[in-house]
Amino acid sequence: VTALYAGIDLGGTTITAGMASADGTVLARRNIATQSEDGPDAVLERMARLVEGLAKETQSTPSAVGVGVPGLVDLATGTTRFLPNLATQWRDIPVAQFLTQRLHCPVRVLNDARAAALGELKFGLGRSARSMAFFTLGTGIGGGVVIDGKLLLGPLGAAGELGHQTILPNGPLCGCGNRGCLESLASGPAIMAAGIRLLRSGMAPNLHTLVGGDANQVTPRSMAAAAASGDTAVRDVLLESATFLGIGVANVVTALHPDLVVLGGGVAEIGELLITHVRQVVRQRVRMFPVDDVRVEKSAVGDGAGLLGAIGLAIHGFEF
Amino acid sequence: VTALYAGIDLGGTTITAGMASADGTVLARRNIATQSEDGPDAVLERMARLVEGLAKETQSTPSAVGVGVPGLVDLATGTTRFLPNLATQWRDIPVAQFLTQRLHCPVRVLNDARAAALGELKFGLGRSARSMAFFTLGTGIGGGVVIDGKLLLGPLGAAGELGHQTILPNGPLCGCGNRGCLESLASGPAIMAAGIRLLRSGMAPNLHTLVGGDANQVTPRSMAAAAASGDTAVRDVLLESATFLGIGVANVVTALHPDLVVLGGGVAEIGELLITHVRQVVRQRVRMFPVDDVRVEKSAVGDGAGLLGAIGLAIHGFEF
Repeated sequence: VTALYAGIDLGGTTITAGMASADGTVLARRNIATQSEDGPDAVLERMARLVEGLAKETQSTPSAVGVGVPGLVDLATGTTRFLPNLATQWRDIPVAQFLTQRLHCPVRVLNDARAAALGELKFGLGRSARSMAFFTLGTGIGGGVVIDGKLLLGPLGAAGELGHQTILPNGPLCGCGNRGCLESLASGPAIMAAGIRLLRSGMAPNLHTLVGGDANQVTPRSMAAAAASGDTAVRDVLLESATFLGIGVANVVTALHPDLVVLGGGVAEIGELLITHVRQVVRQRVRMFPVDDVRVEKSAVGDGAGLLGAIGLAIHGFEF
Repeated sequence: VTALYAGIDLGGTTITAGMASADGTVLARRNIATQSEDGPDAVLERMARLVEGLAKETQSTPSAVGVGVPGLVDLATGTTRFLPNLATQWRDIPVAQFLTQRLHCPVRVLNDARAAALGELKFGLGRSARSMAFFTLGTGIGGGVVIDGKLLLGPLGAAGELGHQTILPNGPLCGCGNRGCLESLASGPAIMAAGIRLLRSGMAPNLHTLVGGDANQVTPRSMAAAAASGDTAVRDVLLESATFLGIGVANVVTALHPDLVVLGGGVAEIGELLITHVRQVVRQRVRMFPVDDVRVEKSAVGDGAGLLGAIGLAIHGFEF
């Protein structure tokens, strides 16, 4: 039996786990439905069994486990503070303690967006960066900040919530309780809601064809395809959300002057239209110093960032 | 002759210099009009003579000099890139090289807002903080970011431009060329312009009495006094700018989860009305994690931060 590293990405709908070697090569991965309505004990049991299954499959034992969770964690103990997207919200659940007892190795727990940033840092574009701002654009907008090669955590792993900058002071109510957060303006659901409105109003004929008139098939990706094939109203919606995202990126660039900004998550699959417009907004709005040396790029690890980050956490501990 | 440390704060209207011991105690200080229209050579000569005068006065020689300048500097060489507020804009002026030759010691040059942040870090409230966001609220709004006890610089000392976050995407044109920057909404001139409008419209009777009807006497401080004695319209103006500032502070707190936010510069002299409202906006808008442990305070070193920071730069070099 060789010693490998396990990562677990605990999501609202799916738990993904992977077993990797010390250089981050994923040798096996599995996933299972979270079913958080069964309560923390059942979900923790699922997480342990997922890793045990991977250990058997790879004929290994985990020498450390990293876990990404959707919310706040006490970093020192690996006990959750508050996971708002899971049933019962997981207040004070000793995730690290439980998994250490079950899996007989050190377990570290981190917010999932910070874990994704760590994945990009250790296994993606971040390897060539000194400082990086990372945005993960999905159902929510998470983020992470890297300064001098180190992921910024703060006491609760909560630093780097770049999706909850106020972009429009009187904008839409955000899930967090604030108004006009970047997340309320440029997350997947915000973009798709606008796409569905266009679909229903008849202003998006190509999108209508692409999704067969089915609102459930409207995604940032199908909207990008519709825009590319001539749906100008869809294009305008995508550019508007890219403008908001560009403002959010510009604010972070102004505050931190990083050499790299990475856009990850499903919404980044909009692709060139999004990235090009974000770059343009950054050039327009950051006027205090030249931004030619600030790269704005799409994630190199994509949706795998969260799991890779959890694995990176297992490998590196909090020394990254 | 003892060895002391010299700091120079180069401003658009005044050059201030000070001579200090290794613990930052200022033993002597002097200032002189900048008169930048005479050109960089003349101004550099004034800076050198100011330090020479202080050296004579304190019977010392400077063992190092730190300089704060209003703009971008190449940190490695101490050569200016661009100082927009000085006549001729000082492109590629070798400030460190000139002063080293004249004063026979190492000279380091840094942006003045970052120097002020360094002053607060080394000699003010920052001494008790692990991470800090610093705002200097004056004619412009500058800033600085401290992570794990270190002032963030970036390649040009330009990181930390917290006054140039976009707060209102379609807001007023800012001096930097962007629209709706915090600076365009909450700097001294923005607040005073609103105060003068109220003075002229007759909606600020107490302010009128306080300044004897003279628009030139309207300052954030006199406006705060007028608001305290019952000018509700003036109070509303101050609260509106405090709301914008609060959004800017909340954005930085959300991104960095610092344990301390410091408000310095002349506008901070508005005092409790400003600080209390900023704290309230931060609690309203930062919803992703508890902010009870994030202190928002008025600067402990006030207007002296810039000079103290230049002295700190002389003492510590770029190792802070």
